[in-house]
Amino acid sequence: MKIYDRPGFPNPARIRIVLAEKNLDAKIEFVSIDLIGAEHKQTAFLAKNPSGVLPVLELDDGTFISESTAITEYLDNLDGNPTLTGRTPREKAMIHMMQRRAEAEMLDAVGNYFHNATPGLGPVLQVYKNPEWIDRNAWGNQQRDKALAGAKYFDEVLKTRPYLAGDEFSMADITLFAGLMFADAAGIAIPDEYKALSAWRSKVSELPSVKNRSGQMFAPEDLKRLGF
Amino acid sequence: MKIYDRPGFPNPARIRIVLAEKNLDAKIEFVSIDLIGAEHKQTAFLAKNPSGVLPVLELDDGTFISESTAITEYLDNLDGNPTLTGRTPREKAMIHMMQRRAEAEMLDAVGNYFHNATPGLGPVLQVYKNPEWIDRNAWGNQQRDKALAGAKYFDEVLKTRPYLAGDEFSMADITLFAGLMFADAAGIAIPDEYKALSAWRSKVSELPSVKNRSGQMFAPEDLKRLGF
Repeated sequence: MKIYDRPGFPNPARIRIVLAEKNLDAKIEFVSIDLIGAEHKQTAFLAKNPSGVLPVLELDDGTFISESTAITEYLDNLDGNPTLTGRTPREKAMIHMMQRRAEAEMLDAVGNYFHNATPGLGPVLQVYKNPEWIDRNAWGNQQRDKALAGAKYFDEVLKTRPYLAGDEFSMADITLFAGLMFADAAGIAIPDEYKALSAWRSKVSELPSVKNRSGQMFAPEDLKRLGF
Repeated sequence: MKIYDRPGFPNPARIRIVLAEKNLDAKIEFVSIDLIGAEHKQTAFLAKNPSGVLPVLELDDGTFISESTAITEYLDNLDGNPTLTGRTPREKAMIHMMQRRAEAEMLDAVGNYFHNATPGLGPVLQVYKNPEWIDRNAWGNQQRDKALAGAKYFDEVLKTRPYLAGDEFSMADITLFAGLMFADAAGIAIPDEYKALSAWRSKVSELPSVKNRSGQMFAPEDLKRLGF
């Protein structure tokens, strides 16, 4: 199998954690896509994923699977023991619900802030993200506030259970963890008062599949191109 | 089990089709939520679903499940034969990928058009949807064009296989079908030239779980309140 991604970006990080959890790293050939150069918006990549986003999984028969939830469903079910996406109807429901909230209220909100209220990934990509009928700065700031409200919500949830969807680590936790990594990189400060969220984050960061992944946002060569 | 929804709206329609496919209608008590009156944005409903959207499934132990994909995962897996969400890793991946595309490129795009470039559900709800920093009409029209581009994409897909995610009817088809019902109601005309899409739609509309559901967008009392 091949995965088209870019080390250090949040959605690729989700799938790298899934691969580590499922001990599948050795079965994957990684192909790096130049996000800063907008390679994912060009014809060759769009043939793999018409939505123009990373990551994409290519199966050995040439089938392309995009969307992180779909890729996770595939990888998590290969061994017949879907620990990350749920084994019972109730687990599946809770995980998909909380995963979606982690995307909408954190990961996607942070992304919208990053790409609209900051220089984001630089000028090449901005042409794909710049409608003239929106105040992008105002939108970005609203999305930052949405992410901060999300942090408060997830803190409340994590006061009631050890992981986002219940008693076990799941796809929902991976999405939220990637969202918080992205928030750090984008300069959104999550308040210290969210103790349950903070304790959960420390716990997740120590999992073998996650350890040392924090602080890896953006590869050194990408940071240099972005002027850091 | 209880479902909080509103007959005739697109996301509730998705779950009604799931219930019919899985022969679960008789096990559900339906509770109608007044969308036009913004009941889903008030405290009592937000305690059930903080995202403030329909439908919501309440399990017998009082657990609330929101997000149509999560509700579908629950209902589809109850009998141990998940025909709508996939039985193999590959089926699950294809279904989740195409479902997500059907949401992003059709159902959600139509919703954004409807709520921004038309009077939508009327003045009570507009206060929840009206940031001053966006040209809502321009945004709505861009989203209409996105839905039309989506129709072209899905037509291409349906030239290659009988259903959106493969050989069998799935959650992805349900989402696209609901999106096209919503497009009709919102006044977005899908071009006749998309023959594969049109043939697929005729076929789906004849399924026992779907039959007679087209043209049911908005209950008569809701249409009257909206001035039709």
